[in-house]
Amino acid sequence: MLTESLSGFQKAHADLVSLHFMPNYLTRKQKAVNKVAIISGGGAGHEPLHAGFIGKGMLDAACPGQVFTSPTPDQMIAAAEAVHADKGVLLIVKNYAGDVMNFEMAAEMLPFENATVLTSDDCAVINSTFTDGRRGVAGTVIVEKCVGSIAETGADLASCKALGDKINAQTASIGVAFTSCTVPAAGKPTFEISAFDIEMGVGIHGEPGRKRETMREADAIIQEMITAILTDLGDRTKDAEVLLLVNGLGATPLMELYLIFNTAEKCLQEQGITVARSLVGNYTTAIDMAGASITVCVLDQEIKTHWDSPVHTPALRWGV
Amino acid sequence: MLTESLSGFQKAHADLVSLHFMPNYLTRKQKAVNKVAIISGGGAGHEPLHAGFIGKGMLDAACPGQVFTSPTPDQMIAAAEAVHADKGVLLIVKNYAGDVMNFEMAAEMLPFENATVLTSDDCAVINSTFTDGRRGVAGTVIVEKCVGSIAETGADLASCKALGDKINAQTASIGVAFTSCTVPAAGKPTFEISAFDIEMGVGIHGEPGRKRETMREADAIIQEMITAILTDLGDRTKDAEVLLLVNGLGATPLMELYLIFNTAEKCLQEQGITVARSLVGNYTTAIDMAGASITVCVLDQEIKTHWDSPVHTPALRWGV
Repeated sequence: MLTESLSGFQKAHADLVSLHFMPNYLTRKQKAVNKVAIISGGGAGHEPLHAGFIGKGMLDAACPGQVFTSPTPDQMIAAAEAVHADKGVLLIVKNYAGDVMNFEMAAEMLPFENATVLTSDDCAVINSTFTDGRRGVAGTVIVEKCVGSIAETGADLASCKALGDKINAQTASIGVAFTSCTVPAAGKPTFEISAFDIEMGVGIHGEPGRKRETMREADAIIQEMITAILTDLGDRTKDAEVLLLVNGLGATPLMELYLIFNTAEKCLQEQGITVARSLVGNYTTAIDMAGASITVCVLDQEIKTHWDSPVHTPALRWGV
Repeated sequence: MLTESLSGFQKAHADLVSLHFMPNYLTRKQKAVNKVAIISGGGAGHEPLHAGFIGKGMLDAACPGQVFTSPTPDQMIAAAEAVHADKGVLLIVKNYAGDVMNFEMAAEMLPFENATVLTSDDCAVINSTFTDGRRGVAGTVIVEKCVGSIAETGADLASCKALGDKINAQTASIGVAFTSCTVPAAGKPTFEISAFDIEMGVGIHGEPGRKRETMREADAIIQEMITAILTDLGDRTKDAEVLLLVNGLGATPLMELYLIFNTAEKCLQEQGITVARSLVGNYTTAIDMAGASITVCVLDQEIKTHWDSPVHTPALRWGV
């Protein structure tokens, strides 16, 4: 399935991306020069993350693993060899044990100066099925967009890493699931959940969240999610401008995502927080899970500049 | 639900769209001048269709009805009064009895020169639950994109209508469902279908298709869909360049849509047909239905030019 899906992705975006098999990795069609090479990767099933963000202003390469399975170091090494452009390699890695281990091994073996930004924006739980610490989820998209932008200006490796770490530190996410996802090879739902329950704080692989709750009105669920996020971000949100990302987990209609956005924006406004940038859609999915996540990133001028800069990828495009 | 969702949509895209209630319609934030005003509309539940396509290079206004329910003539009249720009009004209407009736009433009452493009790209069935003739489905997006583009050049009403009619005539679509959709107000699935069956030729409101079939391998299902489309388009596809649109119906992961694209492209290539343009994603949905549709539009230089031209809307954006 992955092979055919990747082939279709490459054909549909043949102007933007190249695809390599054995080991599997994707790169920009047109190799960038004299910049830090930005590489991400992770298990498949979260599309458009990460391959959908390859292109000018964002990633140079992405390494897809099998569904919900980390890519292996040979993929990252081959990708780095293909895209390195004389200023080092920055790896953007979501905090899952398998990914961390494999990207660390790759980093040690890379014949180029390199650094890693580890994303851990999910404030739902500390430690989880596949994670020590916090999970990296949809906030990763914001990191990839902004780090991709600063790299495009010719910034050095340390500056790229510093911006990525800063964004991760001032970004918090939480998800909610109404149904499980189904890993194709397993053929049955990852977890059981009744039509009357929700999983608050679910992970993007169907990992348990904070608690199983009874279904309530959307407004109450969204308010609880915003409260969790603001508690996590603490003083940083005082009178802040933020980017509000409402992310579908795969099977949630856009109509519902906009409803969530509406309520989330209202909850933030009531706390004196201004939504200055927004993104609504399926950006970090969990195969076919019905549910959504909310991400809040506290903005400053640097982050705004790099969020707004031109980007030309299959899944995010503006200014070009 | 619709009110909150529309409010969220407007907030998330406040730079692009304005929202008006009672009657409900959405317009470009910045009114266009001296061009044919392009207006579409239809029941909610198909997002991003139509409001997601408001903006420079595409629609001037959209009129959302309640979920799966036609908007009423007062909406179209108010929208037209807001956006008309001295060159007449073109209404783009999907062929469903309710929409046709309401847009016809609006057209008769409009104090502006106007014309209508009726889309009917669904080759699955003739006559259906809500339709006399063929249904208008995802091909409508291609009509809206290209007619929006030609209108932007200052083309007159007749030229806009002619391009819309031409595209509709050389575009064919067919959908397949693995699950039903659930209309929120009804609270239960529109139709029953077992996990081992598919509805071949399903409509975007869950209308019956050609037949209920047993689940088979993806390749066989896609081949059947392409055969239906090519049979419908007939000689037009000989050595043709086409736009291939793989459209998710709401709950289908992007990974699967790209797999469908891969196989569909292969099937077309085997018939000597070149996929020269592509679009993959959720563009004309059926709330939370699991399934997808395939649309093939036979290209010529005029259609390619207007497909490629800059567009700046919430759901389609390039060149700007």
